[in-house]
Amino acid sequence: MLYHVEMTVKLPPDMSAERAAEIKATEKAYAQELQRQGKWRHLWRVAGSYANVSVFDVEDNAELQEIISGLPLFPYMEIRVKPLCRHPSSVRDDDS
Amino acid sequence: MLYHVEMTVKLPPDMSAERAAEIKATEKAYAQELQRQGKWRHLWRVAGSYANVSVFDVEDNAELQEIISGLPLFPYMEIRVKPLCRHPSSVRDDDS
Amino acid sequence: MLYHVEMTVKLPPDMSAERAAEIKATEKAYAQELQRQGKWRHLWRVAGSYANVSVFDVEDNAELQEIISGLPLFPYMEIRVKPLCRHPSSVRDDDS
Amino acid sequence: MLYHVEMTVKLPPDMSAERAAEIKATEKAYAQELQRQGKWRHLWRVAGSYANVSVFDVEDNAELQEIISGLPLFPYMEIRVKPLCRHPSSVRDDDS
Amino acid sequence: MLYHVEMTVKLPPDMSAERAAEIKATEKAYAQELQRQGKWRHLWRVAGSYANVSVFDVEDNAELQEIISGLPLFPYMEIRVKPLCRHPSSVRDDDS
Amino acid sequence: MLYHVEMTVKLPPDMSAERAAEIKATEKAYAQELQRQGKWRHLWRVAGSYANVSVFDVEDNAELQEIISGLPLFPYMEIRVKPLCRHPSSVRDDDS
Amino acid sequence: MLYHVEMTVKLPPDMSAERAAEIKATEKAYAQELQRQGKWRHLWRVAGSYANVSVFDVEDNAELQEIISGLPLFPYMEIRVKPLCRHPSSVRDDDS
Amino acid sequence: MLYHVEMTVKLPPDMSAERAAEIKATEKAYAQELQRQGKWRHLWRVAGSYANVSVFDVEDNAELQEIISGLPLFPYMEIRVKPLCRHPSSVRDDDS
Amino acid sequence: MLYHVEMTVKLPPDMSAERAAEIKATEKAYAQELQRQGKWRHLWRVAGSYANVSVFDVEDNAELQEIISGLPLFPYMEIRVKPLCRHPSSVRDDDS
Amino acid sequence: MLYHVEMTVKLPPDMSAERAAEIKATEKAYAQELQRQGKWRHLWRVAGSYANVSVFDVEDNAELQEIISGLPLFPYMEIRVKPLCRHPSSVRDDDS
Repeated sequence: MLYHVEMTVKLPPDMSAERAAEIKATEKAYAQELQRQGKWRHLWRVAGSYANVSVFDVEDNAELQEIISGLPLFPYMEIRVKPLCRHPSSVRDDDS
Repeated sequence: MLYHVEMTVKLPPDMSAERAAEIKATEKAYAQELQRQGKWRHLWRVAGSYANVSVFDVEDNAELQEIISGLPLFPYMEIRVKPLCRHPSSVRDDDS
Repeated sequence: MLYHVEMTVKLPPDMSAERAAEIKATEKAYAQELQRQGKWRHLWRVAGSYANVSVFDVEDNAELQEIISGLPLFPYMEIRVKPLCRHPSSVRDDDS
Repeated sequence: MLYHVEMTVKLPPDMSAERAAEIKATEKAYAQELQRQGKWRHLWRVAGSYANVSVFDVEDNAELQEIISGLPLFPYMEIRVKPLCRHPSSVRDDDS
Repeated sequence: MLYHVEMTVKLPPDMSAERAAEIKATEKAYAQELQRQGKWRHLWRVAGSYANVSVFDVEDNAELQEIISGLPLFPYMEIRVKPLCRHPSSVRDDDS
Repeated sequence: MLYHVEMTVKLPPDMSAERAAEIKATEKAYAQELQRQGKWRHLWRVAGSYANVSVFDVEDNAELQEIISGLPLFPYMEIRVKPLCRHPSSVRDDDS
Repeated sequence: MLYHVEMTVKLPPDMSAERAAEIKATEKAYAQELQRQGKWRHLWRVAGSYANVSVFDVEDNAELQEIISGLPLFPYMEIRVKPLCRHPSSVRDDDS
Repeated sequence: MLYHVEMTVKLPPDMSAERAAEIKATEKAYAQELQRQGKWRHLWRVAGSYANVSVFDVEDNAELQEIISGLPLFPYMEIRVKPLCRHPSSVRDDDS
Repeated sequence: MLYHVEMTVKLPPDMSAERAAEIKATEKAYAQELQRQGKWRHLWRVAGSYANVSVFDVEDNAELQEIISGLPLFPYMEIRVKPLCRHPSSVRDDDS
Repeated sequence: MLYHVEMTVKLPPDMSAERAAEIKATEKAYAQELQRQGKWRHLWRVAGSYANVSVFDVEDNAELQEIISGLPLFPYMEIRVKPLCRHPSSVRDDDS
């Protein structure tokens, strides 16, 4: 089942560069593992921002919550979730 | 080049059912043709709404404008556009 | 799977009283049938408004969309959806 | 009498992990006690967020205020309250 | 029990002057009867607007809904409700 | 002359409990003195919040400013002011 | 006593040009008479808009309401009111 | 002197296609004449919208108002104005 | 040329009382000097707030920027600017 | 390809004057180099603010992201991006 998730990162201005680098590295590994598992289906940067647009493919609401709340950057992000479903005009078989 | 587009349809309450059906049919044909050409890469319904989330793959800003402003439902939609680019943590080769 | 849905009704000021009564009666029958099926689990009026707060229990995002978009008042409502899941502090066995 | 309450937790970024864990544990015990008393009737997590949707069943506005302002996380939450009442289309006897 | 209610009137621009005068007269009689019963405790005009601030004193959420939804101007108003209770610094015995 | 004032308290998360208690005690004494003088006519807690709704009865805009800006919690509050006047449907002689 | 008032005119798109011209002429006469009386102290156009910024000098909230609600364009304007008083840094004797 | 102006066109849904075409043609001629005079220095379409971003080079606020309020589409546009001036980091001689 | 400027002061909660007093004194001297020069034409306090409404009379956008950005409180204010011009209904010769 | 970018600078109130001066100097050099390369086509100050309006001329969304995220002030700015294209009423050959 698909979910549309927008994440905007807001790091506290007094976080040290080392700590920020560390969190970002952990986040990257976490995101890439989920992509390889097929759960984080799309991940795009919004140009000109520190934000992304993502599409997750998970079992249900509970798994979405588990994944999102486990993100290393979770405490520092504004997150908006929209549940998705097949659009009646869609022609792609593999997009829902 | 990818663009993230959200469209929310707001038909005037006094539009006749016939006129609405006609526009929707034209919109569907238009959307499916663009999907087949590869320009309308993703099209999802936002569950519980008369809205969609789409990703377009076009040459440039001008082609995006040409396609969006040509939508039969264009006069009746609220539309938000975000330019996308590759996310540094993305692992998919075909997603940018 | 549970979804939290808020619906605010905005009937066009020039809709006739007969047409309004007709739609509301159809809406009521539709809502009661879905409650009896267990799909519309909770339905409350927000005091001092023409709005409700509801909880739906459906198979997935697609069924939510099917039910919501089938509401007779759908064209006349502002609707906000939030996917729900079990809260780690919940003690109720039958509430997720 | 029922009230719909949405709570979004915003912990200060410089709160220590120990202090956060301590508050959360107290909050959990407080929430579970109120659920057992029947005053905190529903408690759901909003998927993909650090927020909940709750329904309280209390005597009056004053008891709602007493309970909400007593939450250990109260100073760190954005809270929105809506008074609820029975919906004319509701079929459940025990839901108001 | 007290509720704070703000009402802003937005009459459709094409409502006839006769119809508007008729509704306003009915509204006035309705409001004055409720004030005499003690249920509409305060009613003030917000200076420079077609809006009021009111305080209702009713049994519960259900009675508030019954009264508000029965207002002749109800279909033409934006309404915001806040449940009130005694403030710990209040010195008035008759104000809660 | 009456003014409607909403105040929402936002204490800095790093204010010490002692300092907070001290300010709140001063605020309470100040608020009670003004109530006794008849200048702070109504003071209600908004249930489920750290906010109040108040009605002030003062000479003019200047006295309102003097009183509000003298509140011990003034630097820590979001404040919204609305000038009030008699509503044409009001039946109370002592409410304007 | 001074009040700051912003007015934005939103004429219904289907109002006839004759009717609009008639209202505007009445509004102009009304505004000029109030300026001559000294009650409408300042009246500026916000450049690039159909809006004005005004300062009224009236007895009290009630007179402000009487004047504003008597504006011929009152049903077609969004209006925001702010009560003003002397600024402690002001050097003008005649500006409060 | 430069001004940044954003215009979003919102034609009434019941305006006839002929009337719309007529206004747009007049608007185009008006806009092109002002560009040739050097007063409408930049005019861009915001991709995916019926909106533009413009920069005007006029004598003063009054001339800006005269030009904007004279736009044939003026009654059907949302308009936001920002006064501009030279940026201390600008290297262009002809851009202020 | 006139500009309407609203300024809302938001001092950081951890600024020392000495530092705050110092900035305010400098701000006051600066504001009074500009008023004496005729450039800061009006300065009013918004009653019940730490905000002002001002009207500046300066040469052009650049001088406005120079004055505003030179305010000692500039880093601690939310500022909104509107360019003004003569209103066609104004009767004052000296107010534009 | 053109992009419209608005940037509002919000420096943390506890950043030292030295650090702020350092970042601003780096930002200025960066901005001027990009202007000389023709990539930062326009850069204007919004009068009365610590904000700018800019137009970038870059290859694609990815280059825009590279440039914007490389700004020394990037962590301290609110940034809004709009993709631009040629307006059908534009008469300038070199403005798209």
